[in-house]
Amino acid sequence: MSGRDTRQRILDTSLELFNRHGEVNVTTNQIAEELDISPGNLHYHFKRKSDIVRHLFEAFNTEMADILIDPGERLLELEDLWLYLHLLFETIGRYRFIYRDINDLLERYEALRRPFGRLLQRQHSTAASYCASLVRSGVLLLDELDQRTLVDHIVMTITYWIQFSEIDPACRERDGDILARAIYQVISLAIPYMREPERSHARNLALSYL
Amino acid sequence: MSGRDTRQRILDTSLELFNRHGEVNVTTNQIAEELDISPGNLHYHFKRKSDIVRHLFEAFNTEMADILIDPGERLLELEDLWLYLHLLFETIGRYRFIYRDINDLLERYEALRRPFGRLLQRQHSTAASYCASLVRSGVLLLDELDQRTLVDHIVMTITYWIQFSEIDPACRERDGDILARAIYQVISLAIPYMREPERSHARNLALSYL
Repeated sequence: MSGRDTRQRILDTSLELFNRHGEVNVTTNQIAEELDISPGNLHYHFKRKSDIVRHLFEAFNTEMADILIDPGERLLELEDLWLYLHLLFETIGRYRFIYRDINDLLERYEALRRPFGRLLQRQHSTAASYCASLVRSGVLLLDELDQRTLVDHIVMTITYWIQFSEIDPACRERDGDILARAIYQVISLAIPYMREPERSHARNLALSYL
Repeated sequence: MSGRDTRQRILDTSLELFNRHGEVNVTTNQIAEELDISPGNLHYHFKRKSDIVRHLFEAFNTEMADILIDPGERLLELEDLWLYLHLLFETIGRYRFIYRDINDLLERYEALRRPFGRLLQRQHSTAASYCASLVRSGVLLLDELDQRTLVDHIVMTITYWIQFSEIDPACRERDGDILARAIYQVISLAIPYMREPERSHARNLALSYL
């Protein structure tokens, strides 16, 4: 097996173990053991666990940058929102160790603070653009204060919903498809600000996904 | 100093260090050092760090139980909500290490899963009772689906808002009083479902706190 393959396999297995147990609970020795390679071989590719974390975070950040694209002047429909949120949560789900204990991760890996802060800013501005586009097309009725508050709610729900659904007994009992529920929760924040018939349409669309 | 005093001081100092650095990053040796007592003395009172965590969690849980009281048939006013949320966030803030990395904490301390799950259920049912009371008094206009969704949003915001405000650059720049902002965020979830004049009243009340 080539060095390049080994390197990628280390990253893949680390991601899997981090997602399953939480990054803080996984050691490089456990990663090597899972891969059936020596700790020295792993060390040859990544000096410290923090190097693995940094690489995974960069891969995540690149994927997110491809999703968080400002819709600009384009007039949006509800279905655009749905697709956008689907891609977003799908990516967050694949790298869920990052969001699982994000506050602790940023405490321990100072180098991630700036890029994660920029990612959140990007999420704020993209959410604001989506809202502004839906206000322009008349679907959403929002003044400036409501819009800022709504954007805060959206970014927080994107950041924490998957975590919440893992620990909340009501969600665990009820929600079959966590991804669909996450999208529903975000859309539902905007529903009370929609005009008819989009409001009823959004509710029905949301319900069909649950 | 009596044993009882030492025991309480260990709990107080642990809470302070856990809140500041995250529970996972604090060792019993660091707690002993901060208190200027020997590790053996600490060990005499608490065999493992998990015993300290359990005691702090129980204290938190008892305080929360005193706050999460079902309003029953009482007709509520907006100010009741405000006071309730103030007490809730104030307590969460004092024990913020629990919420800071709640998913990881529940992964590592299996014994906390059940009581924390019950606490979330209690929060769901209390939030549902508050909503139902405001629906009965005509302040909130909600059907059953909207109410369930709103309750989910409320419980998630209570669980994660303080954490979110610590890592989100927009919140860090803007929010002077994190407690007031947290209350505003929860109330703002219900505002679009309010009838007038309560809706305008709630907005003004909310703004006066920011």
